[in-house]
Amino acid sequence: MPILVLIRHGQSAWNLENRFTGWWDVDVTEKGAEEARAAGRLMAEKGLDFDQTFTSVQTRAIKTLDLALEEMGRLWLPVEKDWRLNERHYGGLTGLNKAETAAKHGDEQVHIWRRSFDIPPPPMAPGSPFDLSQDRRYAGIAIPATESLKDTIARVLPYWEGRIAPALKAGQRVLISAHGNSLRALVKHLSNIPDDAITSLEIPTGQPIVYELDEALNATDRYYLSER
Amino acid sequence: MPILVLIRHGQSAWNLENRFTGWWDVDVTEKGAEEARAAGRLMAEKGLDFDQTFTSVQTRAIKTLDLALEEMGRLWLPVEKDWRLNERHYGGLTGLNKAETAAKHGDEQVHIWRRSFDIPPPPMAPGSPFDLSQDRRYAGIAIPATESLKDTIARVLPYWEGRIAPALKAGQRVLISAHGNSLRALVKHLSNIPDDAITSLEIPTGQPIVYELDEALNATDRYYLSER
Repeated sequence: MPILVLIRHGQSAWNLENRFTGWWDVDVTEKGAEEARAAGRLMAEKGLDFDQTFTSVQTRAIKTLDLALEEMGRLWLPVEKDWRLNERHYGGLTGLNKAETAAKHGDEQVHIWRRSFDIPPPPMAPGSPFDLSQDRRYAGIAIPATESLKDTIARVLPYWEGRIAPALKAGQRVLISAHGNSLRALVKHLSNIPDDAITSLEIPTGQPIVYELDEALNATDRYYLSER
Repeated sequence: MPILVLIRHGQSAWNLENRFTGWWDVDVTEKGAEEARAAGRLMAEKGLDFDQTFTSVQTRAIKTLDLALEEMGRLWLPVEKDWRLNERHYGGLTGLNKAETAAKHGDEQVHIWRRSFDIPPPPMAPGSPFDLSQDRRYAGIAIPATESLKDTIARVLPYWEGRIAPALKAGQRVLISAHGNSLRALVKHLSNIPDDAITSLEIPTGQPIVYELDEALNATDRYYLSER
C-alpha cells in the first residue's frame, strides 16, 4: 500500500513575529529546527521509511526535510525541490505583521483574505522589498503577484499529478516537506475537503501527517503520527 | 566557459582518529562542518554560483554540500546523490586506525596499499561490522569488497561522462562535493595526471578547487579558490 507522509516546516522567524511570509525566504528558528529533528526521530522510532522526498525551493521547508532525514539516517535519499510546493504567495501582505495588516486594511478584510478560498490579497506592489523577480531560483517562472488558496491549489495539483502520484504508484514511499497552504492543497485533494472548510484546517508545524492510500491513491486512512 | 568546482568533505570523526573510512558512513566533526560553511562563504564572496550540484550518498559529503549551499543562499539548487561519487572502498582496512593497520599488516604493506594505483587492500571479511550489504541505500548495487584507486576511477568516470559532463556541456555551472579518492579520479582525468603521480596528490578538505574548462571540457585552468 502506498504511504505518503506530509510535514509542515518547523517554526520560522516570521511565524514567530506573526508576519505574512509567503514566498519570502525566511529561515527556521532554533525551535523550528528542533521540531524538524523531533519529527525525524519520531518517524524513525515508528519505523517509517521512504524512497523519495519532495520539497519546495524555500529554505525553511528544505532545512526541515534535511534535519528530519538526518535524524533518520536518510540524508542520502533523493530530494526533488520544486517551486510548485512553495507557500501561498501573499502578495501585498508579504512582510506585514498582524498589527500592521489590521492598521492598513482593517481586521475584517484581513479575516476575509485569511479565510477566503478564492479571494487573493492585493498584488505585491512594483518595487516592493519582497519582490522576487530578480531571484535566480524563479528564472523562467511566472511569479504570481498574489495568490488565493484556490490559486495555490491550481499549481500544486499539477505537480502532484506529474511527479508525486507517479512515484507513489511506482511503489515508492514518499515524504513531502512543505508549507501550510501547499499542504492544504494536498490534504483537500486527498481527503475531499470542501472549499469552505479547507481554509480553516490548521496544519501544525513539524507534525508528520500519515496518509495510507489504496492503489488508485484514494486515502484509506489519515492520522498524525504522534497519535499512533 | 563551463565552470566546475570540486570540494572534499570537511573533517570527519574518523579523519580525526586516522581510521580508514571508505564507504562507512561517518559524520563530519564540528570542525568539518565549519570548514564546509567557510567554503560556502568563500565561494559566495568570490562571486561563484552554480546551477547543478552532485555528491555521494555518504553523509559527510552531503552535509558538506548542504552547509556550503546554505551559506551561499543556494539550498534550493538541485542536488544529485550517487554512490559512484563515494570514497574509495578500503575493504578489510575499513575501521582500522593507523596503529592497528601497521600492527596487523606492517608499515610497508600499508604504504603500498595507500600509494599503489592498482593494488587493492584485502577484501572486507564476511560478517565484518562494516559490511554494508544490508544497507538499503546500496540495494541493487554490486558493493565492492575492496577497491584500488584504479577501481574507484573505473566507477567515477562513467558517472562523470553520463551525468556531470552533459550538465557542463549544457552550460550549467557545477559544484561537486565528494571524497579524497573520488575527487582524485576527477582531477586525474581533467588534469591528465599519470597513474604513479595521482596516488600522492593530496586534496585538502573544505578547499574549493576551481576548474575552468573549454567547450570540449578540457581544463584551461585549475586553482584553489582561496589563492585567488
